[in-house]
Amino acid sequence: MDSAEFTEFGTAMIQYITQYLDNIRDRRVLPTVQPGYIQDLIPAEAPEEGEKWQDVMKDIERVIMPGVTHWHSPNFHAFYPTANSYPAIVADMLSGAIACIGFTWMSSPACTELEVVTLDWLGKAIDLPPQFLSGPSNGKGGGVIQGTASEATLVALLSARTRFAKKHLSNARSFDEDNFISKLVSYTSEQSHSSVERAGMLGGVKMRMIPTDEDLRMRGADLKAAIQKDKAAGLIPFFVVATLGSTNSCAFDALDEIGDVCQEEEVWLHVDAAYAGAAFVCEEYRYLMVGMDKADSFNFNPHKWMLVNFDCSAMWIKDANEVVEAFNVDPFYLKHDMQGKAPDYRHWQIPLGRRFRSLKLWFVMRIYGLKKIKEHIRIQIRLAHDFEQMLRKDNRFEIVTPVIMGLVCFRLKDKSNEDNEKLLKRINERGKIHIVPAKIKDLYIIRFAICSRFTNLEDVKIGWQEIQDATTELFPSK
Amino acid sequence: MDSAEFTEFGTAMIQYITQYLDNIRDRRVLPTVQPGYIQDLIPAEAPEEGEKWQDVMKDIERVIMPGVTHWHSPNFHAFYPTANSYPAIVADMLSGAIACIGFTWMSSPACTELEVVTLDWLGKAIDLPPQFLSGPSNGKGGGVIQGTASEATLVALLSARTRFAKKHLSNARSFDEDNFISKLVSYTSEQSHSSVERAGMLGGVKMRMIPTDEDLRMRGADLKAAIQKDKAAGLIPFFVVATLGSTNSCAFDALDEIGDVCQEEEVWLHVDAAYAGAAFVCEEYRYLMVGMDKADSFNFNPHKWMLVNFDCSAMWIKDANEVVEAFNVDPFYLKHDMQGKAPDYRHWQIPLGRRFRSLKLWFVMRIYGLKKIKEHIRIQIRLAHDFEQMLRKDNRFEIVTPVIMGLVCFRLKDKSNEDNEKLLKRINERGKIHIVPAKIKDLYIIRFAICSRFTNLEDVKIGWQEIQDATTELFPSK
Repeated sequence: MDSAEFTEFGTAMIQYITQYLDNIRDRRVLPTVQPGYIQDLIPAEAPEEGEKWQDVMKDIERVIMPGVTHWHSPNFHAFYPTANSYPAIVADMLSGAIACIGFTWMSSPACTELEVVTLDWLGKAIDLPPQFLSGPSNGKGGGVIQGTASEATLVALLSARTRFAKKHLSNARSFDEDNFISKLVSYTSEQSHSSVERAGMLGGVKMRMIPTDEDLRMRGADLKAAIQKDKAAGLIPFFVVATLGSTNSCAFDALDEIGDVCQEEEVWLHVDAAYAGAAFVCEEYRYLMVGMDKADSFNFNPHKWMLVNFDCSAMWIKDANEVVEAFNVDPFYLKHDMQGKAPDYRHWQIPLGRRFRSLKLWFVMRIYGLKKIKEHIRIQIRLAHDFEQMLRKDNRFEIVTPVIMGLVCFRLKDKSNEDNEKLLKRINERGKIHIVPAKIKDLYIIRFAICSRFTNLEDVKIGWQEIQDATTELFPSK
Repeated sequence: MDSAEFTEFGTAMIQYITQYLDNIRDRRVLPTVQPGYIQDLIPAEAPEEGEKWQDVMKDIERVIMPGVTHWHSPNFHAFYPTANSYPAIVADMLSGAIACIGFTWMSSPACTELEVVTLDWLGKAIDLPPQFLSGPSNGKGGGVIQGTASEATLVALLSARTRFAKKHLSNARSFDEDNFISKLVSYTSEQSHSSVERAGMLGGVKMRMIPTDEDLRMRGADLKAAIQKDKAAGLIPFFVVATLGSTNSCAFDALDEIGDVCQEEEVWLHVDAAYAGAAFVCEEYRYLMVGMDKADSFNFNPHKWMLVNFDCSAMWIKDANEVVEAFNVDPFYLKHDMQGKAPDYRHWQIPLGRRFRSLKLWFVMRIYGLKKIKEHIRIQIRLAHDFEQMLRKDNRFEIVTPVIMGLVCFRLKDKSNEDNEKLLKRINERGKIHIVPAKIKDLYIIRFAICSRFTNLEDVKIGWQEIQDATTELFPSK
């Protein structure tokens, strides 16, 4: 395909994309296909001869769209948002054309440099303590773009593991001595994301789930008790993950208390704010991040709520050397003259290769500006409160947890888990909106999240009407 | 930014991309910027008010391009190729617009389904044994797109670790008993990629580097001896990585021999063909993959040599359940009705989230067709042989390893490592071409790889002339 043909193809795709997004309201949010549906629509083998791009374009509606869950439909209220914006899509086109691999500074200096600067921009925008930023810390701290929050948690856990191996073992690179790995213990809230539990599994270490208070927050005293118990048993507490904005219910752990405990007990503190971190661009939500100065690493996903397409998970580390020590293997073919003068991000992550992802962060922050980004966050939180108000007026329902960000957790009052599950299934089967449940301390909860940047008050009213209608349909007595 | 503005912006970007790639030959392949250069060119903080997209566009040449190493310049001969093609860029635009997260089948069925089918396409195209494919194996085997080969190796290692935990421990989810992790031993060639060593480090297990024969191949007998020695010492050999096409010199381990050893010793065999695997689309190179039926997992990167933009690292597993068992944590909010009827790819990888990456594989395979993909591979290998012939006619140089794929490893004959290093530095400083070295058994080697899809015979001649000129400049005596 030459440049002229790409111009035609790319132009046709731009038109397709604008039509898709401008009319996404008309599509059924959840598809109705069955597993294996695509095998009946396309051949079992790749073609030997190339096909025309026009034929591939035609297959988007025929093959792909029937099986798409439309995450950017204004009626998608499941999980949490994933970002989608025009500036990010255009930035990714440029990233695809430059197509450099930024594993070392020298392998494409712009790729590393723009990441250093835009993560300082972003850190300042959410008022992150200056020790986390590259500029103010003189390069001791700094930010990096990971693929996902799961990877950020695992990177932090492995770095903490190496910190403790250095402290306890004669050779920090092999974990041979003294049953070391079996003694390591990490801690998180019982409300934290499954990827935290998984990071423990992958790292081969114990992960204790700390019970939460009535607002589903992990508290300092409970954490402290668990750590001290393990120490008394001869184990080595080494790593804590605090969650700001849990996936279940958007609960915020008591970071300030937890930070004190981690400092007293000399344990690595990682803060996972995957979804809610974006809200810290707005001053009025920064009370939720008090204590961040006591953390060792922090992560949130601009690819969730900050208009930067996936994947763009921003992570900051207070002492980047600790990550480098855990990840550094330095083969000859990757050595270069500038080592030590700028970060080589391959030592900050699990993969070796990396795309030029900071372009989309740069495009989004410049073209929207912080003002529009704040507006976007505030609008979505306001819509969640609007929904909350609608719910409160119908006494068939109860709100289960405080509404702080763009998520409302509710259930049918005085009904069993099974009844609530029936309601959720019925709503999803009707196909007008999509929501998912959570289970909190054995209670079945329905989650309604404001996700799409297209969602407006009218859509929220439609969503609420849909929930009411499905409820009346299922439980007509009331 | 609304759809009309995106149309303008996207159209301008298409024009920029075609101009960049059509004229990439004119750019200096390596930049001359110094660490920190970008800080002087852009503000220290994100703007409060949004900027015009036109101003962002202008900054690409002012801010970004001076710091780009042009991987797609026909004069880029460093590392191995990374892919860049128009069909892949357009597919990524669509992926960015749909912007679904494909962690479960239900979260966007098309995302999972197209991945299942295109990885079967790709597996068939390289004649992978049918046990690895989803269709022929009835879903026991199957392919998945990982971000990088590093991740594929780590996924395989962690899965193997769980296989052995199930065998040796009462609770395969915790590695508490009997100093288990300290006893695990993995093996790879001393020539294998640094990411293999790193996978061992991250997994907390020993990784033995097996010496290679005169052609830099790991041989079955050497592996067998190492495994038996460890068994005799009470350790648990559990995992072997064989490399097809090493990064240093594109050496191919003796897979068939290694496969036998792994079967006899009951050890997980992972095959890493990150670069060279793409060449198996051509029948004449399949002799190098004999023995693949004895492997447990296999990986190569279409994002290297197969025209699919990064990231698209294809991995196949013979028994996908073994990966799921290592990675599965099943939170309530991700449960859905179709579980068990289609893969939930979140259990096959380290991150939870995942983009719709199979679109670019589908677009590339359809629009090029297998015929053009084979042609691309063959042209690049022929160019390497052309370069080899040029070198052979100049007796100042020697070819160090057999030229099998698109890489030529050479050095100044009868000169010290230091002299060879001087030559490489001089060549890169002159800035016309970019190459990197390797160190093989203490010998400093210069690597010349055919990378860009734009490289033609004329460019190879220019590269060779440049190497000759730099040599004459440095060592005029000869």
